[in-house]
Amino acid sequence: MAEILVINPNSTVAVTEGLDAAVAPMRFAGGPSIRCITLEDGPAGIQSQRDVDFVVAPLCRRIAYETSDAFVIACFSDPGLHAARETVAKPVVGIMEAGMTQAMTLGQRIGVIAILHTSIARHIRAFRAMGVAERVVGERPVGLNVVELSDEKTTRDRLITVGRMLVNQDGADVIVLGCAGMARYRPALEEALETPVVDPTQAAVGLAITQLQFRMRPRRI
Amino acid sequence: MAEILVINPNSTVAVTEGLDAAVAPMRFAGGPSIRCITLEDGPAGIQSQRDVDFVVAPLCRRIAYETSDAFVIACFSDPGLHAARETVAKPVVGIMEAGMTQAMTLGQRIGVIAILHTSIARHIRAFRAMGVAERVVGERPVGLNVVELSDEKTTRDRLITVGRMLVNQDGADVIVLGCAGMARYRPALEEALETPVVDPTQAAVGLAITQLQFRMRPRRI
Amino acid sequence: MAEILVINPNSTVAVTEGLDAAVAPMRFAGGPSIRCITLEDGPAGIQSQRDVDFVVAPLCRRIAYETSDAFVIACFSDPGLHAARETVAKPVVGIMEAGMTQAMTLGQRIGVIAILHTSIARHIRAFRAMGVAERVVGERPVGLNVVELSDEKTTRDRLITVGRMLVNQDGADVIVLGCAGMARYRPALEEALETPVVDPTQAAVGLAITQLQFRMRPRRI
Amino acid sequence: MAEILVINPNSTVAVTEGLDAAVAPMRFAGGPSIRCITLEDGPAGIQSQRDVDFVVAPLCRRIAYETSDAFVIACFSDPGLHAARETVAKPVVGIMEAGMTQAMTLGQRIGVIAILHTSIARHIRAFRAMGVAERVVGERPVGLNVVELSDEKTTRDRLITVGRMLVNQDGADVIVLGCAGMARYRPALEEALETPVVDPTQAAVGLAITQLQFRMRPRRI
Amino acid sequence: MAEILVINPNSTVAVTEGLDAAVAPMRFAGGPSIRCITLEDGPAGIQSQRDVDFVVAPLCRRIAYETSDAFVIACFSDPGLHAARETVAKPVVGIMEAGMTQAMTLGQRIGVIAILHTSIARHIRAFRAMGVAERVVGERPVGLNVVELSDEKTTRDRLITVGRMLVNQDGADVIVLGCAGMARYRPALEEALETPVVDPTQAAVGLAITQLQFRMRPRRI
Amino acid sequence: MAEILVINPNSTVAVTEGLDAAVAPMRFAGGPSIRCITLEDGPAGIQSQRDVDFVVAPLCRRIAYETSDAFVIACFSDPGLHAARETVAKPVVGIMEAGMTQAMTLGQRIGVIAILHTSIARHIRAFRAMGVAERVVGERPVGLNVVELSDEKTTRDRLITVGRMLVNQDGADVIVLGCAGMARYRPALEEALETPVVDPTQAAVGLAITQLQFRMRPRRI
Repeated sequence: MAEILVINPNSTVAVTEGLDAAVAPMRFAGGPSIRCITLEDGPAGIQSQRDVDFVVAPLCRRIAYETSDAFVIACFSDPGLHAARETVAKPVVGIMEAGMTQAMTLGQRIGVIAILHTSIARHIRAFRAMGVAERVVGERPVGLNVVELSDEKTTRDRLITVGRMLVNQDGADVIVLGCAGMARYRPALEEALETPVVDPTQAAVGLAITQLQFRMRPRRI
Repeated sequence: MAEILVINPNSTVAVTEGLDAAVAPMRFAGGPSIRCITLEDGPAGIQSQRDVDFVVAPLCRRIAYETSDAFVIACFSDPGLHAARETVAKPVVGIMEAGMTQAMTLGQRIGVIAILHTSIARHIRAFRAMGVAERVVGERPVGLNVVELSDEKTTRDRLITVGRMLVNQDGADVIVLGCAGMARYRPALEEALETPVVDPTQAAVGLAITQLQFRMRPRRI
Repeated sequence: MAEILVINPNSTVAVTEGLDAAVAPMRFAGGPSIRCITLEDGPAGIQSQRDVDFVVAPLCRRIAYETSDAFVIACFSDPGLHAARETVAKPVVGIMEAGMTQAMTLGQRIGVIAILHTSIARHIRAFRAMGVAERVVGERPVGLNVVELSDEKTTRDRLITVGRMLVNQDGADVIVLGCAGMARYRPALEEALETPVVDPTQAAVGLAITQLQFRMRPRRI
Repeated sequence: MAEILVINPNSTVAVTEGLDAAVAPMRFAGGPSIRCITLEDGPAGIQSQRDVDFVVAPLCRRIAYETSDAFVIACFSDPGLHAARETVAKPVVGIMEAGMTQAMTLGQRIGVIAILHTSIARHIRAFRAMGVAERVVGERPVGLNVVELSDEKTTRDRLITVGRMLVNQDGADVIVLGCAGMARYRPALEEALETPVVDPTQAAVGLAITQLQFRMRPRRI
Repeated sequence: MAEILVINPNSTVAVTEGLDAAVAPMRFAGGPSIRCITLEDGPAGIQSQRDVDFVVAPLCRRIAYETSDAFVIACFSDPGLHAARETVAKPVVGIMEAGMTQAMTLGQRIGVIAILHTSIARHIRAFRAMGVAERVVGERPVGLNVVELSDEKTTRDRLITVGRMLVNQDGADVIVLGCAGMARYRPALEEALETPVVDPTQAAVGLAITQLQFRMRPRRI
Repeated sequence: MAEILVINPNSTVAVTEGLDAAVAPMRFAGGPSIRCITLEDGPAGIQSQRDVDFVVAPLCRRIAYETSDAFVIACFSDPGLHAARETVAKPVVGIMEAGMTQAMTLGQRIGVIAILHTSIARHIRAFRAMGVAERVVGERPVGLNVVELSDEKTTRDRLITVGRMLVNQDGADVIVLGCAGMARYRPALEEALETPVVDPTQAAVGLAITQLQFRMRPRRI
C-alpha cells in the first residue's frame, strides 16, 4: 500500500502530533497511509530565512532515505520544495503551494495569518514567485509569544481577532493559516468569521493523495 | 456516507461514462462516494460562450434538486460555478479552477490543450479572472473534428503532437487537458512528453474530497 | 437610419426610463436613433451571479429577435456580453467594459461605487478578466436598502460620502458608477468630488455610436 | 455649438487632411463640430522620443490659444497628453489611450501595427504606463520607407501582411493601427483579416463627443 | 579622465549645491570626476507634467553641448531620459530609474516620499511604465510649503512622520526619497525608521560610475 | 579602508580568478578594496536547486567569519541572499538582483542567457519573486558542455548566436549574462549585438560600492 510521508521540518514533536491529528480525516481504508515524522535535525522552529535554507540539506537527506511514495513538506515556507523534487522522482507537495492554490478555489481575495511579523516579507517573495500575490489582499501576524501560543484560548481568540481584520479591513473572503500547526483552530475560525479557512497541511495531503492515486508523473527536472 | 456528484453539463452520456472511469481511483472504502451524472437538459457539447451561459439555469436547478454533499462541475469552462455556489451551501468545485491550480503546483509554465480554437479566447478571459494567466505560456487546440476525435489513436497521436509544441516551442513544463473528457489519454501523454499532465476532473475530485473530509465551509456569498 | 438598442436586462421599467433620459444627449439629427427597452423576462433587479447567468438566455433571444444595428447591455455585470456577440454579427457593447475603459482615459486610479456589497467579488473577477484590476484602487458599496435608494436626496448624499472615501482614503482620481441606473447623480457627484465620474451606460452609448458610424466589424468568433 | 479640435502635431498637411476625412462620419447635425488642424511648429513626422517630447511646448501653446471645447491629440505616442490636461480645464483625448481602450472592448488579444520598428520600445513603455501591456500580444512594424508609404497599394498590401502575422502567429483578435494616418486602410484590413481593426483617431473622436455631450468634468490636477 | 555630468534640470542653484555635496562620497582618485550643473533654462522647480515635458528640449540641448562621458538627470520625474538617450551615444541615467531599482535590491515593499501630492499620479504612471508598480506599497507627500521646506528641522521631522506612515501603515521596508534634493536627510531618516532609505541621485551616480568603468554600451535606439 | 568581499560560492578557483579580473575597473585609490574568494566548501558548480540550497549554510558561515564591510554573492541564483542578510548587518548584494535591476535601466525588454536549460525554471521563479518577470522577454541556454565551455572561441561564438536569437526573435533590447563567469565575453557580445550586455557581478560590485560609500543601512529583518 502506498504511503504519504508528512515531514515536519522542525524538531518539535508536539507539532508533528498536531499534524498527525490534523490529517486523520484523509486516512481511508484502501487509500494511502499517511505517516507524520519529525525532522530531528531541524531547528525547534522555522522562523527565519536562515532556518528555511539551512534545513534543506537534512530534509533532502531524509527524503532520499525514506521509501515513501509521496512527500509533504509541512512548513509554510515550503523549505527545500524544489530541491526535494530534484532528490526523488516522486510527488513532493509543499504546504504553501497547496494552501494558497486551494484558497484560490474558495474565494477571490486571500488573507493570510502568519505567526511572526518577520515572516511576512519572506512569504511575499514566495507569493510573487508562485504568481498568487495579486490574489492576496493582506497578511497579518498573530503576534503572540511562545508562552501565549501555548494557551489554546488565547491563541484561538487572537486568530479570530486577526482574521476579522483581514476580512473586515482588508476585504479577504478566504483565509489561509500561514503555519503548519494551527489546524485545530480552523473550525472555530471558520465559524467565527463565516468565511472559509484553509489549513495548508490538510490541503497538501489532499493534493498528495490525488497525485498518488492517479499515478501522476512528478515534474521533470 | 457523503456523496460527491460529478455533473457532466452536456447531454452526451459517453462523456459521463468517461468521467466515471476517470475518477475511479478516488473511490475509497470509507470515503465519499462519487456519482457521475449527465445533465440531460444540457447541449450535446459545450462549445461556445452561449453554451456555457445557457446551461447555467438547468445546471443550478439540478444542483438544487440533488442532495449530494459536494458537487463537481465537469466542463473546462466552469459554467455556473459561482451561480452554483449561490445555489447550495455546499462545496462546489469547477474543473478549470481545480486543474489550473493543481498545475501551479506541478510546474512553472502551464500549457493548455483545448479541443476547439474558438474556446481559447474564452479560456484566456477565465485565466485572467482567476489570476493564473501569467503562469500560462500557451494554449493550443487539438484541431480534430468529431469523427477524428472518435478515433482513439488519432486523438492520442494528435494530443502528443500538440503537447510537444507546448513543451518545445512554448516552454511548458506542465500540461493541462482543457476538456472534461480526455483523462484516458493522460498516462500516454505524460509518458510521451516526460512532463506532468493534469486531468482537470481528477484534480477537481481530489479537491472535493479534501473539502468534504475536512468539512470546510463553502464561501459565504 | 441606424438604431442602437439599449437593453435593460431587468424588468423594472423605471430603470429603463432612467436610461432613456441618461442617453438623450447622444441623440443627434442624422445620427443613430437610440431606443431603450426593458427585458420583461428579466428579474426585478440583477443582484447575484445567478441573476447574471440566468438572464443570458432571454437576453440573447431578444437580441436575436430585434433588428437593431447595435446593442448595449445596460447592466454593470455585462451579462451575456460574449454570448450576445456570438448571437448577432453586430456591435454589442457592455456597460462595464465601456465604463471601465473610459475611466482609464480620465484618471490613473479608478474607484468604483457598487450598489451591493455582495457584487464586489463578482466585479473583481470581471475586472481581472478585462485586465483593468491593477488600475482599480477600491470598490465600495452604497449600502442603502431599496426604500432608501428610492429617496433621491438620501441616495445622492450617500453616493457623495462613498465617493469621498474612494477619493480620500483609497486615492481614486476617477469614479465609475457601478450600476446602470445612477446617471442622474453623476453631475452632482462630479461637482462634490471635483473628480470625473463615469456613467457606464453613457460611455457605452458613445462607444456604440462610434462603432456604428465607422461600420466597425464585430469581433470574429 | 461646441467644437472638437483635432490637432495633428506634425506639420504635414496631408496627414491632417486624412484625419479630416477619417472623422467625417462623426459630424452630426446638432453635434459638436470637428475641426482638424496642423501644428505648423511640429516636425514633419513624429518618429522619436525627442520628437514626442519636443512637440509638447508648441502643442500646449496652441491648445491654450484655441477656444475649442475639447481636444484630440492625433499622434499615437500621445505627446503632451497629461501636460495638455494641465493646460486647459477641458477634455483632452489622446489617440493611443482611446485606441487601446476601445480595442479592449473588441477583443481579448491586441495586436498593434507600428510604422517604425524604433517606435515599439516607446509604445511598450506607454502600454505599461496605461496598464494595457498584458492585453497586447504583439506589435510589428510596417517597415516601409517614405516612398513606399506614399503608394497606397503597397501600403495596404503590407498592412495586410503584417496584420496576418499578428493574427496568425501572435494570436491577435483585434488590431490597432499604431499611427494617426492609416484610417483609409481600416476597412480593407478588417475585410482581409476578418478581425476588428481600430483607427485610434476615430476612437478618440468618439470619446471626445461622449465627454462633451455629457459635459464630463476633466480630471482634476 | 572621464567625467559624469549631473544635471539639475531646474534653475535653483541651491539644489545643485545640495546634489554636489550628496554625491561627494563617490569621488575617487582615479575614478570619474563628477560635475554638478544647473540648467539655467529650466524652471525654478519641476512640479507638473508641463514642467517635466517643457524642460526636455533645453535639457537635450545642454547634453548635446557638453562633452562629458556620462549624464545623470537629477529630477525624480526622469524628464527627457529617453530623449537624452537618443541625443548622445553615452550612458544617461535617470534618478527615478536608479532609485527605484536600487530599492528593489534593499527591500520587498517600496514606500516613496513625494514633495507634492500632485506628483503622485505622474509617478504612478512612471512606476507602471518601468514595471515596478507592483513593488510599491505607497507614496505619500511631504505636504510642506516652500517656506516650511526651507526649515531643516521642520522638513526632517515631517519626513520622519511620513516615513513612519509608509512603514507602519503601508508596510514599506525600504523608502525612496522621491525628489532630487533630500539627500541630507537620508541618514537621519534611516536612523529614525530603522529602514534603508534610498537617495535617488546617489543611486544614479553609482550606476553611472559602473556603466562608465565597464565601458558599457548605451542602449541602441 | 573598507573592503567588499566577492564570494564565488562554488569551489572552482578559475571562476574566482575570472571574477577578480572582471571587477578590476571598480578598484579606485581611496575606494573600497575588492577581494574575491572561493568558497572551498561549495560544489564545483552550482547547477541545481539542491546546489543553490545546500550551499547556503557554508556560505553564511563564511560571511559570519569574514570581517569585510560588504558582500557580493557571485552566483546568478543568488543563493542564500536573504539568509546572508540575516547573518550580518552589512550590505549583501546578489548578482541576479543587481544584474536584473541594472538591465531595467538599460532597456525595455530583457533577454537572459543561461548556461543550462535546467536553470531556466529556477530563474523564472526568482524573476517573479523579484517582480521583474514582466520585463523579461526570453531566457535561452548556451547549451555547451564543460569541454566546449572551456574553449573561448566556441563559447564566444555560441553566446553571440544565442544573443542574436534573444534580440531578433524575442525582441530583447538588453541582455543579461545569467552566470557569474562570463564577463570576459561581455565586450565582444555588446559589439556583435549592438545591444547593451550586463555582467551581473560587475553590476553587483557597483551596487556594493554605492551602498558602502553612502553608508546605507542594510534592510532590517
